Amino acid sequence: MSRYGKLRKEFMQKKNVNDTLSFGEVRGEVEIITIGDEILIGQIVDTNSAFIGQLLNMNGMSVKQISSVSDDRGHILAALDEAKKRADIILITGGLGPTKDDITKKTLCEYFKTSTRFDEEAYQDVVNIFATYGKEVTPINRLQAEVPAICEVIRNKNGTAPGMWFNVDGKIFISMPGVPYEMKAMMKEQVIPKLRSQFKFPVIVHKTVLTQGIGESTLSEMISGWEDSLGAHNIKLAYLPSPGMVRLRLSTKGSNEHELNAITDKKIEELKHIISEYIYGYEVYGEEKETLEMMVGQMLLKNKKTVSTAESCTGGYISHLITKVAGSSAYYIGSVISYAYEIKESELGVPHEVIMKHGAVSQPVVEQMAKAIRERYKTDYSISASGIAGPGGGTTDKPVGTVWIAIATPEKVISEKFLFGNNRERNIQKTANAALNMLRKELEHLA
Amino acid sequence: MSRYGKLRKEFMQKKNVNDTLSFGEVRGEVEIITIGDEILIGQIVDTNSAFIGQLLNMNGMSVKQISSVSDDRGHILAALDEAKKRADIILITGGLGPTKDDITKKTLCEYFKTSTRFDEEAYQDVVNIFATYGKEVTPINRLQAEVPAICEVIRNKNGTAPGMWFNVDGKIFISMPGVPYEMKAMMKEQVIPKLRSQFKFPVIVHKTVLTQGIGESTLSEMISGWEDSLGAHNIKLAYLPSPGMVRLRLSTKGSNEHELNAITDKKIEELKHIISEYIYGYEVYGEEKETLEMMVGQMLLKNKKTVSTAESCTGGYISHLITKVAGSSAYYIGSVISYAYEIKESELGVPHEVIMKHGAVSQPVVEQMAKAIRERYKTDYSISASGIAGPGGGTTDKPVGTVWIAIATPEKVISEKFLFGNNRERNIQKTANAALNMLRKELEHLA
Repeated sequence: MSRYGKLRKEFMQKKNVNDTLSFGEVRGEVEIITIGDEILIGQIVDTNSAFIGQLLNMNGMSVKQISSVSDDRGHILAALDEAKKRADIILITGGLGPTKDDITKKTLCEYFKTSTRFDEEAYQDVVNIFATYGKEVTPINRLQAEVPAICEVIRNKNGTAPGMWFNVDGKIFISMPGVPYEMKAMMKEQVIPKLRSQFKFPVIVHKTVLTQGIGESTLSEMISGWEDSLGAHNIKLAYLPSPGMVRLRLSTKGSNEHELNAITDKKIEELKHIISEYIYGYEVYGEEKETLEMMVGQMLLKNKKTVSTAESCTGGYISHLITKVAGSSAYYIGSVISYAYEIKESELGVPHEVIMKHGAVSQPVVEQMAKAIRERYKTDYSISASGIAGPGGGTTDKPVGTVWIAIATPEKVISEKFLFGNNRERNIQKTANAALNMLRKELEHLA
Repeated sequence: MSRYGKLRKEFMQKKNVNDTLSFGEVRGEVEIITIGDEILIGQIVDTNSAFIGQLLNMNGMSVKQISSVSDDRGHILAALDEAKKRADIILITGGLGPTKDDITKKTLCEYFKTSTRFDEEAYQDVVNIFATYGKEVTPINRLQAEVPAICEVIRNKNGTAPGMWFNVDGKIFISMPGVPYEMKAMMKEQVIPKLRSQFKFPVIVHKTVLTQGIGESTLSEMISGWEDSLGAHNIKLAYLPSPGMVRLRLSTKGSNEHELNAITDKKIEELKHIISEYIYGYEVYGEEKETLEMMVGQMLLKNKKTVSTAESCTGGYISHLITKVAGSSAYYIGSVISYAYEIKESELGVPHEVIMKHGAVSQPVVEQMAKAIRERYKTDYSISASGIAGPGGGTTDKPVGTVWIAIATPEKVISEKFLFGNNRERNIQKTANAALNMLRKELEHLA
């Protein structure tokens, strides 16, 4: 048995493969091949694969491998051959431009031992694109309408390169342009509906629990028993860390969406009892991704409350996160960035003696900063932060990464000390996330 | 001849392979394997591969393929096997976390038929990481120091997972964590120097010209004649756009570093005559990357000048960029983020009538903002910005993307109007970059 045959057998023997049953001739295993030197030399980041992976996944298909290869005939042929052995559906992007360095179409003809034909509809799309710019089709662009004889054309309303759909030996090959917005429209409007109409795929449910303020390994130890219990329900858990936060993704696959949702929700309920204080939100796959600043924004908006910030070590980053959200002017009023001691004194009323006695990174200073900005900017809530972002400025008492954060509310001022790491940029990010999470917790007390 | 043998022969026959000559046993052909379900389901975009590709390329190595596979034993084994057939150096990222879903290390042991050993140095790194957070190493993290017996450890100063270097059958396998900043530090500080010390790669010279304030296509038209002249000198040009800026990278490869530098410098001199007003700096590969905010910071520092900002549409982003730079407290004093009209009036002395008459996004408003913050925060220079970031708030007169920026200096206040696009996040970034560039131009008048 070939390695691939063996590999497939291994996959089949795995517990969850019973769910990826064969419907029609296709099992729903997909590979993506991206073609283009610019990816291999790192000139562009391949965002297409992530888009495709997400879309396929939401539609019950699993991507087994993504391969990026260069604009090289031999290399493309080898990649097609390998993908065909492993997958049922092969999605190819890139290399369809009109210039000489783009050889995907020619190579597909060679691979499928076919010649080209002129496609009237594809040509019409080229004509329309040129008409948008008030231009006639150039000879080199007329060639874009030459397609492999055995393919079905996937029309492209946004560019000159038609997509191509091949059905050979029970395998589907789909070639699309690499330009993200052309490919995206093709995937959403044509490729996915066509795949769904021809094959039946399993249901996949992903739900993500968002945590803040607990490290990956501590979290993993706390929930280890719960994690072990997931296997019995065929739920996979993934840890997705970013500065100061860990997202926990639960994934499961089957045929009954209702049941899959129910069991996943049940497990999330159990998790809540273990780590409730660290959970700041949830993401359901397919719905818009929620950030902490979006969540805080929605809570402020809903309760018609406003916020201001007084920042030192974060240097405006908290305000930036808040104002990145469209519509934030409804609840965000403004900030004082008091980087220098003098500004903390003159603008935020921190007494000179307090700074001298306790230092700028201290509880009395951040509490005064939060109190002062809230009053001065007449907001309901305020956030303040003062810390040693690094690399310089650390002492034995207050090493780099020491941060004080305060939140002023209509009733009180609360504050907390943190010890983050020694990377300046991450310390700034972690401080901002911790501050937003402290505010979120306070806002939860509202209706 | 096997398909891979054939493929290699084809590569060898290609023109540029004379440059990637074999030195020692290694030809410098590299493959990257990224491991992790989160890439395949599109939950994260794989930015690691682009970083690695770029770094290798600049050091004379060519990436032949990037493969992304899932956290699945059989699949990882198959990917290693395939990569080994094609490449001499295989870089692997991901799957090294302490949690149960990470199986790369275990699988590498299986692949190389080796067991694990406890590595004292790796353990010391784990201890140090935990010490930074004032914590003891947990049992699960102690396991991070268990490494495959036959590997050399690549130390990790930024995380708990050591990198691993394998030299088996004349092939190099390097396994690194998937966390970008851990992997990046490892690549730059250890993997690249070690590869360079063991093998000889061709000399590659990259120099980058940094431009601000001109779009990619206009730029391309302006320099088209110059661009055509590069081919004769075997210099490749790449356009690397980011919001409001385009970096032009000139790359050339050969054996004589001195000659390569000389011809590249000559071409850059020619370019200066064509687009001097848009060039704000240069980057030489291997030297630290200079951002506009770093450049401005150095100019302020050198001239012992200070700066403050008064921001509206950028919501703290300009301050964030300035304070991201270590040591910025020497020249950055603070900011007022006047998101609401009231703050522009109460804190920055913008007369109510002026806002009523001209609108918050107007020349008199930004000029007053810049003047006021400079005086109030007692700085030598100041930056102010007010604009419509979008998506809402646009009018026929002032569509989304309209931005006014002012700079106050000890002598004067200058201001400029911009019309950016309709993407909120990019408008914020473009505004910040344009503002920093305006300040840079003013600072150039200093000695």
